[in-house]
Amino acid sequence: MTPGAANIATLLVSCPDRKGIVAALAQVLYGHGANILDADQHTDSQSGQFFQRIRFDLSELLTDRVAVERAIAEVAVRLAMTYRLEYAQRLKSVAIFVSRHGHCLHDLLWRHRLGELPCAIRAVISNHPDLEDVVRQFAIPFHWIPVPPEAKERAEEEQQAIVDAQPVDLIVFARYMQIVSAEFTRRYAGKIINIHHSFLPAFIGQRPYHQAHERGVKLIGATAHYATVDLDEGPIIEQDLARISHRDTVDDLIRKGRDLEKMVLARAVRLHLEDRVLVYGNKTVVFD
Amino acid sequence: MTPGAANIATLLVSCPDRKGIVAALAQVLYGHGANILDADQHTDSQSGQFFQRIRFDLSELLTDRVAVERAIAEVAVRLAMTYRLEYAQRLKSVAIFVSRHGHCLHDLLWRHRLGELPCAIRAVISNHPDLEDVVRQFAIPFHWIPVPPEAKERAEEEQQAIVDAQPVDLIVFARYMQIVSAEFTRRYAGKIINIHHSFLPAFIGQRPYHQAHERGVKLIGATAHYATVDLDEGPIIEQDLARISHRDTVDDLIRKGRDLEKMVLARAVRLHLEDRVLVYGNKTVVFD
Amino acid sequence: MTPGAANIATLLVSCPDRKGIVAALAQVLYGHGANILDADQHTDSQSGQFFQRIRFDLSELLTDRVAVERAIAEVAVRLAMTYRLEYAQRLKSVAIFVSRHGHCLHDLLWRHRLGELPCAIRAVISNHPDLEDVVRQFAIPFHWIPVPPEAKERAEEEQQAIVDAQPVDLIVFARYMQIVSAEFTRRYAGKIINIHHSFLPAFIGQRPYHQAHERGVKLIGATAHYATVDLDEGPIIEQDLARISHRDTVDDLIRKGRDLEKMVLARAVRLHLEDRVLVYGNKTVVFD
Amino acid sequence: MTPGAANIATLLVSCPDRKGIVAALAQVLYGHGANILDADQHTDSQSGQFFQRIRFDLSELLTDRVAVERAIAEVAVRLAMTYRLEYAQRLKSVAIFVSRHGHCLHDLLWRHRLGELPCAIRAVISNHPDLEDVVRQFAIPFHWIPVPPEAKERAEEEQQAIVDAQPVDLIVFARYMQIVSAEFTRRYAGKIINIHHSFLPAFIGQRPYHQAHERGVKLIGATAHYATVDLDEGPIIEQDLARISHRDTVDDLIRKGRDLEKMVLARAVRLHLEDRVLVYGNKTVVFD
Repeated sequence: MTPGAANIATLLVSCPDRKGIVAALAQVLYGHGANILDADQHTDSQSGQFFQRIRFDLSELLTDRVAVERAIAEVAVRLAMTYRLEYAQRLKSVAIFVSRHGHCLHDLLWRHRLGELPCAIRAVISNHPDLEDVVRQFAIPFHWIPVPPEAKERAEEEQQAIVDAQPVDLIVFARYMQIVSAEFTRRYAGKIINIHHSFLPAFIGQRPYHQAHERGVKLIGATAHYATVDLDEGPIIEQDLARISHRDTVDDLIRKGRDLEKMVLARAVRLHLEDRVLVYGNKTVVFD
Repeated sequence: MTPGAANIATLLVSCPDRKGIVAALAQVLYGHGANILDADQHTDSQSGQFFQRIRFDLSELLTDRVAVERAIAEVAVRLAMTYRLEYAQRLKSVAIFVSRHGHCLHDLLWRHRLGELPCAIRAVISNHPDLEDVVRQFAIPFHWIPVPPEAKERAEEEQQAIVDAQPVDLIVFARYMQIVSAEFTRRYAGKIINIHHSFLPAFIGQRPYHQAHERGVKLIGATAHYATVDLDEGPIIEQDLARISHRDTVDDLIRKGRDLEKMVLARAVRLHLEDRVLVYGNKTVVFD
Repeated sequence: MTPGAANIATLLVSCPDRKGIVAALAQVLYGHGANILDADQHTDSQSGQFFQRIRFDLSELLTDRVAVERAIAEVAVRLAMTYRLEYAQRLKSVAIFVSRHGHCLHDLLWRHRLGELPCAIRAVISNHPDLEDVVRQFAIPFHWIPVPPEAKERAEEEQQAIVDAQPVDLIVFARYMQIVSAEFTRRYAGKIINIHHSFLPAFIGQRPYHQAHERGVKLIGATAHYATVDLDEGPIIEQDLARISHRDTVDDLIRKGRDLEKMVLARAVRLHLEDRVLVYGNKTVVFD
Repeated sequence: MTPGAANIATLLVSCPDRKGIVAALAQVLYGHGANILDADQHTDSQSGQFFQRIRFDLSELLTDRVAVERAIAEVAVRLAMTYRLEYAQRLKSVAIFVSRHGHCLHDLLWRHRLGELPCAIRAVISNHPDLEDVVRQFAIPFHWIPVPPEAKERAEEEQQAIVDAQPVDLIVFARYMQIVSAEFTRRYAGKIINIHHSFLPAFIGQRPYHQAHERGVKLIGATAHYATVDLDEGPIIEQDLARISHRDTVDDLIRKGRDLEKMVLARAVRLHLEDRVLVYGNKTVVFD
């Protein structure tokens, strides 16, 4: 029997590596009657940093959630841990930003409907009105916020107002073709996933399919990464590639690329929603 | 610093799932001063079986190896565990069986020379003399044991004598084109890795590339699996595929298949040598 | 400049191989002022059969289409050719059959809207009413035709009435979970593309993901093929695979499989619509 | 029956696109009694350049090779064609440059022995003596030419002397870690294939695996390209990628990368030897 989401929690920890971390956490959970379902760990040998993801079942707790939380907090202090404790019960809240290309947006909405993405999609925000109909079919609020060059700041304020109306766990840039401010990026640090339509760090910047065609590569790629102040330089979550040939025009690359973008973005979003991604420096640990 | 092989041990356990297993093992290791480097686990929800692989560093033990071994044995009894404890220091001993196709054999020998396969290759056994020169270049004993249809049993006895002269941890059938007896398979149960040149369970049996060509598939595959009494039915360790088209003749499939066979077999052998594979029923858990 | 669809024709020929075929066809087209844009050919060495696909531009014809058609017909008689001449201008007509799983259907509709599938989707026919809303959003007629076990024949008559109301070039079984009659298959021979959710010929028949999970394979697949009387035995157009592990439950396979099914079916449909597939015996030549 | 290599020729042409090219060439070949086995073509719509590869059988020529050659030359003048006519009978001559990493070299030698690479390997040239034994086992001359920083020019002269002793069709840089002069590159323009151990244009230059590890990418690649004056900027022939994770150290990337490098280089060399690659500008047309 797979335990229901109602009783599942996920603990993500990161701390300087030392002996006894695994034992300490396992002992605490066992002591309170929690049952470890999955555990994965990683030590980065360069930085000496330890990372762990533990998924556990709370349905036969000997104590209660408050006691478990307190016990974890105590271990965290002792071992200088940074950690996050997430209950599967609480659906994460998501806002999607999009411009005119609807394929990634639509793919996410469809997967959400099929139950592939455990979250609540609170809002879709776009600088164009084009995709309103698509979004409405899924009964999700659509906000058209134009972003004219001369009033970018004000547009961002409007976006933030919507995003912050309810605390948001994740913002997805599903082919959102605007550059946001450094403030925006910092405000939602580690909470914005962007899809770039190339295999980063190749073809950074504008029109990567045109660049790829120009260079004559034999594979095109897509990259999902956390957005940071430096464009296209953030921690990479997921990448994939597709084979092309001299026969493929730029339009063919764009068409084949759409499939890559959809798949890569959806995988990254799912990994984030399942608390499988830990960021350190400019990299990610992905416990998949 | 990565700890040297001299002080690394790997523990592979399997037992009925219950609370506290992870804590019990982690506690024992911590108590003796061992440092967990990697840990991966899996619970098969159908059978309720728990599997874990723990790799740990012994260089700062508070006690000694005997004490650690005794402590693990005690936990194992308590939790009804089957387990295996392997020291990286002790190189695994390997025998390779081959017929006339040398590509897999040669690939393994070359990888071994480059340090990719942590083992000692004790012997190469073949029913043909063709590959003797290749093997000798790597300073590995080559045994030509013909397997005439009328004297298969005797040939197998000779093979066993060589294999058993020193306890062997792994037998690799690197395109060994003979069917071995059920006794042989049972004797080395879980210790024979075979490479089948198709994506099993498609194209079981003889001449899979011819079968694939006949059927008109668009991909060909290779499968590395533990040999069992039922031919090509054993637990699968690794598989991979390559794209083909109507242009490919059977000879092209054979050529492209060679690359698949080499890669898939080498990966499976490496996984086995690193104690990353656990068999349950007719399946494997591969901690990679 | 890419010539517009209005003036593009595609010629697909098949005949016993002999010298001069390429010259004869190229000469005829040149003589009438057609410009060859693409040409691809294949000779099956086993059967001695020659296949060619020629895509050409008619915009600077010295004669007219009727003259070109007559000239091709004459060559065809002379060289014992079977051939098909298709004008890009005439959109192919498509009917989609579906049951309850909407992911393939929806993917096709969305790609159609984006211009990836050059065809007119005339009808969606389902044995369940569930997907009516989805189809209506795309302004495509939806026909709910229940298929009760006791009245399969009558249901098929109704389906045929709809399909034949306008001559249909392609029927897509987009996860249509009913077995159609041999008569139906023969009536639309070479015009039905089915998606099977396994890497055929592995896991033929019902519940392939369950079979795959049971067998413990490390990759799952999907296969798009022309439907023939023998279930899952028809000529394969396209296949693809995705990596899985012991962690994946049957539900995970189903989820990962959905992406495979969508991609593989969409690619096969596009290949068919672009006149890139020739069937011979139980195989296909795919000029991609 | 597949015609033997003795009677096979391959014609590679490139010219401004216009009507009648395919007909003209097909007509000439048919007129002389040649039988077209394969033909593939491509028109680059940006530059309006036409490319074609025709493989044909000469065994039933009505005239002779001289007559065929003259006829092709005449067509070439008429249509402003650049062309190359290659007889399969004449084995191409190859020199391999290598430094200390032997995996690509060894892979090429082994494939050559298995008949995968239709060529004569005339010489292996290295700036280190390490791989002499390996090369000698394949009965191929090994030349140790040290390349001290202060005498690079003289070393290059020695290399050229060996390469030019017999006209060479292809120089393979099989992980040759020296930068050659612009003169050298120009002298053998279109005849040097280099393997770069990254997915170009990502990670140009030194130590790409370290760069990839630093950036935290989820895939690593390898690129085979023609060497040009600008390092790593030449026309790309073939690329491939492998999935990595946060668990992979730089050493793991190097190990996994070796397999990529071998495969990608071998495929590129084979494509070149089979006259399947045409260069235009900084790109390739690969007729595979």
